[in-house]
Amino acid sequence: MIPQRLKKLRDLMAKRGMDAYVIPTSDFHESEYVGDYFKARKYMSGFTGSAGTLVVTAKEACLWTDGRYFIQAANQLKDTTVTLMKIGEEGTPLIEDYLYKAIPAKGKLGFDGRVVTASEGRSFMERLADKQVSLATSEDLVDLIWEDRPAMSAKPAFLLDEKYAGKSAVQKLDELRKAMKENGCTVHVITTLDDIAWLFNIRGNDVECNPVVLSYAVITMEKAHFFVNPACLNEEIREKLSADGVEIHPYGEIISFVKSLSADETVLLDPQKVNYEIDSSIQGKKVEKANPTQLAKAIKNPVELKNIRNAHIKDGVAFTKFMYWLKTNVGKIPMTEMSAAEYLLARRAEQDGFIEPSFETISAYKANAAMMHYSATEESNAELKPEGMLLVDSGGQYYEGTTDITRTMVLGPITEEQKLHFTTVLRSNLSLANARFLHGCIGMNLDILARGPIWDLNLDYKCGTGHGIGYLLNVHEAPNGFRWKIVAERRDSAVLEEGMVTTDEPGIYIEGSHGIRTENELICRKGVKNGDGQFMYFEPVTYAPIDLDGVDPQYMTEKERRTLNDYHAMVYGLLFNYLTEEERDWLKEYTRSI
Amino acid sequence: MIPQRLKKLRDLMAKRGMDAYVIPTSDFHESEYVGDYFKARKYMSGFTGSAGTLVVTAKEACLWTDGRYFIQAANQLKDTTVTLMKIGEEGTPLIEDYLYKAIPAKGKLGFDGRVVTASEGRSFMERLADKQVSLATSEDLVDLIWEDRPAMSAKPAFLLDEKYAGKSAVQKLDELRKAMKENGCTVHVITTLDDIAWLFNIRGNDVECNPVVLSYAVITMEKAHFFVNPACLNEEIREKLSADGVEIHPYGEIISFVKSLSADETVLLDPQKVNYEIDSSIQGKKVEKANPTQLAKAIKNPVELKNIRNAHIKDGVAFTKFMYWLKTNVGKIPMTEMSAAEYLLARRAEQDGFIEPSFETISAYKANAAMMHYSATEESNAELKPEGMLLVDSGGQYYEGTTDITRTMVLGPITEEQKLHFTTVLRSNLSLANARFLHGCIGMNLDILARGPIWDLNLDYKCGTGHGIGYLLNVHEAPNGFRWKIVAERRDSAVLEEGMVTTDEPGIYIEGSHGIRTENELICRKGVKNGDGQFMYFEPVTYAPIDLDGVDPQYMTEKERRTLNDYHAMVYGLLFNYLTEEERDWLKEYTRSI
Repeated sequence: MIPQRLKKLRDLMAKRGMDAYVIPTSDFHESEYVGDYFKARKYMSGFTGSAGTLVVTAKEACLWTDGRYFIQAANQLKDTTVTLMKIGEEGTPLIEDYLYKAIPAKGKLGFDGRVVTASEGRSFMERLADKQVSLATSEDLVDLIWEDRPAMSAKPAFLLDEKYAGKSAVQKLDELRKAMKENGCTVHVITTLDDIAWLFNIRGNDVECNPVVLSYAVITMEKAHFFVNPACLNEEIREKLSADGVEIHPYGEIISFVKSLSADETVLLDPQKVNYEIDSSIQGKKVEKANPTQLAKAIKNPVELKNIRNAHIKDGVAFTKFMYWLKTNVGKIPMTEMSAAEYLLARRAEQDGFIEPSFETISAYKANAAMMHYSATEESNAELKPEGMLLVDSGGQYYEGTTDITRTMVLGPITEEQKLHFTTVLRSNLSLANARFLHGCIGMNLDILARGPIWDLNLDYKCGTGHGIGYLLNVHEAPNGFRWKIVAERRDSAVLEEGMVTTDEPGIYIEGSHGIRTENELICRKGVKNGDGQFMYFEPVTYAPIDLDGVDPQYMTEKERRTLNDYHAMVYGLLFNYLTEEERDWLKEYTRSI
Repeated sequence: MIPQRLKKLRDLMAKRGMDAYVIPTSDFHESEYVGDYFKARKYMSGFTGSAGTLVVTAKEACLWTDGRYFIQAANQLKDTTVTLMKIGEEGTPLIEDYLYKAIPAKGKLGFDGRVVTASEGRSFMERLADKQVSLATSEDLVDLIWEDRPAMSAKPAFLLDEKYAGKSAVQKLDELRKAMKENGCTVHVITTLDDIAWLFNIRGNDVECNPVVLSYAVITMEKAHFFVNPACLNEEIREKLSADGVEIHPYGEIISFVKSLSADETVLLDPQKVNYEIDSSIQGKKVEKANPTQLAKAIKNPVELKNIRNAHIKDGVAFTKFMYWLKTNVGKIPMTEMSAAEYLLARRAEQDGFIEPSFETISAYKANAAMMHYSATEESNAELKPEGMLLVDSGGQYYEGTTDITRTMVLGPITEEQKLHFTTVLRSNLSLANARFLHGCIGMNLDILARGPIWDLNLDYKCGTGHGIGYLLNVHEAPNGFRWKIVAERRDSAVLEEGMVTTDEPGIYIEGSHGIRTENELICRKGVKNGDGQFMYFEPVTYAPIDLDGVDPQYMTEKERRTLNDYHAMVYGLLFNYLTEEERDWLKEYTRSI
């Protein structure tokens, strides 16, 4: 099947004189998660992982992917004629270098310019410059082959009331135009879906778990232009947008629109986010930097923060009900990783204002939890027994915000080592949550507070300690985060500002044995300001018990125990009113002072 | 006096058609400390601070300096006709911008190209490019005015035996040439005095407290060229250098030598260190980066580390004798900040292999210690009484290494707040010293371990937490350090490597009241290596009691108390053999478990 598809592609390439064609994993908006319409790389290679780039030449087809997927890709690429290129392994060329060798002088490179970022497209051009290779980027060749291609999502959008958003679209546009002026720009092209949704106070359903609308926006000093499938918008939305000075255009007209912009304009855009086709259609001068909406969106306003606290009370009630059910019924009624996740989802769904999960729940039992990207399938779905631990990482989208919580729950006897690890992860979490720091710190300054207790055991977790989180938007949001090494393209190393919400999720993962993660969200707050500067601290905003059955107090300092006890007292105080008597008694016990 | 000197300078400038002349604070080697010969800016402006740049035009003379010196400079510039330019204050132009305004189109800018770095000189040129300003950099006009100018230092140099250096000059040159090859270079110009001293295993006395030799080096694949005043070298040194393949040239011939290098050579140099005159005399291609010797020198070899531990035992014996004398005699015999420092120096001088102090001792009593750059003068020299605290920051140059230690000593009653601060600084020091971390961490990852306990009190210290330190070389050495914000030009943010030695010196400074600092040096060591990576830890290498009279154990965790007790037990074990019976009994008491 794959070889036939590749043959069709090669025929199309030959007709157009293309020497290579690149198919990355992306939508037109550089989204983290993409809809089925955009899974062209999967269609052409058979590889289903979330990251990978296929390059096809007349003779070869090669797929680049990273360490997470070497085994899976090797299996899925069998009999496809596609060669696996292991990123980071010795001898694996960069894609640019491969193209440089594969394409003859004055040859032609093709790709759909909408699924490649401006930065990537430009770097291909630079690498191939001395071979005078030409580019063909305005045609999606896969579309000509893919007969049963799913339709592009066009789900109904909805307006987010100001009582939820805390600020009108008009105010946000005003502030954005100020930022454009400060950067000497007259036009701003925004293609990131969460920035657009935030700016217009609109939400949708075009990416699973991410309530965004497939769209583009072009902001001028007078007008805001919104490029979107008209089917997504009802009359109410059209009227509101029109009243806010937003003009609606069909989604596909973005290219002709930016082509029509005068060469006298100065255009603000983010070359790591805007796609190559848009970028190369602009004649004006460019100012290249992150969208000002990125930072503005990350700094939650007081109304959003109030709502977020409410959303977390609801989420905490749902989680506590789930945890009570899980811990009191395990071994008595049949349960699996998946049925437990379903039970939790049902508790969330009972909450007023719940919309959908904020990401696919990770429900991982015993050794499964050691695989950080584990997702239970019908085949792997483990039965839960009254022994070992279950790790559940989940969250909800509410009108009042987005949640992301991980708890590891003790279902029966665990080993002394597991108790040490559980307690250490808890100490890591509390240590970061307790940080007092000067304004100016970035996540990298603070990461060791969480990682330190785990490093003390000569262990590490191979991921960041935390990420920013949206408001009824993407569960992963730039530019704040906790990480010990800066990864430039992740953009999660911004100065921590009041109102930013970041997760705090250290963990210990022992292959073949167990995995433990404890995750709370933290609101960054201003503390004392004095001659030494503006001090900052965190307010934990996730409200659910941390399973005391995993905690051995002997490993904790008095201060750590006090912090945990204070946290648990707050959890009980916020939740008990919303619980049954049995749940309440159970929560009282599980939030007791230690 | 200053106005007359400025007039002479303006006359010389006029003859040469110069519109502005720049006099920075530097020697020809971008050294942190400079000898009297190089104090031209002080001679021309009357300002004695360690940092400042004078710019003279036909009409104006302006001195740029930073916040540390605003008050001092304002006083010293009275009646000099020199205007103070406060760096960082609103309205103060950058020097480049001032020059841009002050110099007419096609005008001429002058400075001694040997006291301006290549980077600085180039940035002047860039800023002035569109005005077609020409540069005159080969003449030191101040030298023509300064009649009683001190001679340039030319103290006798000495060889550092391999039993101290741990590696021969021949080996070091071999390794350096490998690094040159890796960078595609055929020639390397080194002008930093500590790099040259390290490379040739030679020491001198041309900068106070920094045992370096005023010199330049040019390394080719075949030869090493050493430019130095021949008066510094005795026959033994000449023979050794010659045997090691080092050719000696007069100091002043560096310029003509680099001018004579073929344009086919590729020259490795550090534009932030090499002076403008040398840089602009090179015809070949340049590869611009930090000298490879910078990192090689920072990673102490096993012989150096063994010696360093010995040097610290000697230094610890001297310090302990001093501390015993101070604490048992205060209030009984007359003592001042300066006499205490002299007593300490005398104890160091008794130690075998002691050469000189490694920097000017800070001996600061009570509120004087709140001034981080306090240096006692005959006027300020406070009398020590049996009350409050004395902060002493000092160190020695030994054949076996360079030391830098700070202790704050309780001379009598102190307040509860002072005890809290003393204990907090101790906890900060121990917390950093106790770090376990993955290889790859830089100082910025770890800084919060020291700063955190102080930030918890809503206090901060306005300096880095620690700096690298040389081996019988400069007390401040790149590229390692602890700092919470990266300051690019300081270059103290290298990955922490095994064998690096870095100070750990958090502090609390309360203006008008007290200052507390506790400083140990830490050797970076490799710990466990496993699937998670190479873990690292620190070995404290400063051996002297931390005054328990300042410590309130109630503020410490059990782990912190254990760490302190272990440290004190080690101190006693290493030192007691070298003490009198009274000193030994005293040390036993002051290293007791708490």
